[in-house]
Amino acid sequence: MENERLNRQLSFLLEIDRMKQVLRQTLLSDGSRQENDAEHSWHLAMCAAVLAEYAPPGTDMGRVLAMALGHDLVEIYAGDTYAYDDAGNATKEARERAAADRLYALLPAEQGAYWRGLWEEFDAMETPEARWANACDRLQPVILNLASGGRAWLQHDARVSRVRERVRIIGEVSPALGAWAEAQLARAVENGWLRNE
Amino acid sequence: MENERLNRQLSFLLEIDRMKQVLRQTLLSDGSRQENDAEHSWHLAMCAAVLAEYAPPGTDMGRVLAMALGHDLVEIYAGDTYAYDDAGNATKEARERAAADRLYALLPAEQGAYWRGLWEEFDAMETPEARWANACDRLQPVILNLASGGRAWLQHDARVSRVRERVRIIGEVSPALGAWAEAQLARAVENGWLRNE
Repeated sequence: MENERLNRQLSFLLEIDRMKQVLRQTLLSDGSRQENDAEHSWHLAMCAAVLAEYAPPGTDMGRVLAMALGHDLVEIYAGDTYAYDDAGNATKEARERAAADRLYALLPAEQGAYWRGLWEEFDAMETPEARWANACDRLQPVILNLASGGRAWLQHDARVSRVRERVRIIGEVSPALGAWAEAQLARAVENGWLRNE
Repeated sequence: MENERLNRQLSFLLEIDRMKQVLRQTLLSDGSRQENDAEHSWHLAMCAAVLAEYAPPGTDMGRVLAMALGHDLVEIYAGDTYAYDDAGNATKEARERAAADRLYALLPAEQGAYWRGLWEEFDAMETPEARWANACDRLQPVILNLASGGRAWLQHDARVSRVRERVRIIGEVSPALGAWAEAQLARAVENGWLRNE
């Protein structure tokens, strides 16, 4: 009985190794290649921890870290959907729900429910933990895009209005981080990395 | 003043992007390429969280996750040292200490001390959190090596006695996980993936 439980946990841990092969649109800071979901989840968790003082008061950082680690797991089956891909985003919810049904069934039932719950909480963006994790999820690609001279934005011909809309939650959660992000987007427009319309 | 503090934190978060380019000797589960430190740190943190019920009673999982995320950061400058590379391990401590001096100085002082402290705690393997994080750090490559048919062990002509010594802490922390690891090493020897001498 215990072995069956452990075997399910280990099967899950093996399956999620595939996160290392799910590519995102964001490039590494040196522009050398696309980032993958495992790397992104790690970097996001580090952002959430190192910038914790900007999180809403009372945010449970242990819960934020678990949420950051697991927030993109459904992409193993559903693939990454680029933030500004309107067609992809129209089917995203259904694809990710089917992926969650499949992935979390690998775990013992109550653990599957826990990790699925963390993912749903992240997507609903209502709790302090989910709002903080989302703010960092929007901030981390900005850090990388700025470092590579806006390469990912240029490749996708991104408009500053869309990016501004996407990062709005950063300023809602932390005015200081929001002011930083706004200044960086202005600099990106000035440098021709983002289209100003 | 606040901006200087934030700028230091953001510089650190940008610098650690280099973890995505530090290669380890372990291969992904499909054997397609080497794993990097960012991916490993994420996978290790997931192992520590999903297998938390096998951790010592009273283990603070939030602290374990932060430790897992940061335990290999010094390798950005010191490089990865393979567990069974005796020459590399002779100089590892000095290289990593110099790397820590350089890396953690990027952060505001008290934050640098916090992350450096977590890394030193991990290496000392004394607290429940450090023992659990180390047990998972030894378990995670075993999961990957088994999945790829022992490819990394075969490439390094690994002896089971060395691997057994390295994974001993798994059984010290959790007899159930230790029994699983021991059974897997026996299977690896049987399959010719590990040298039995």
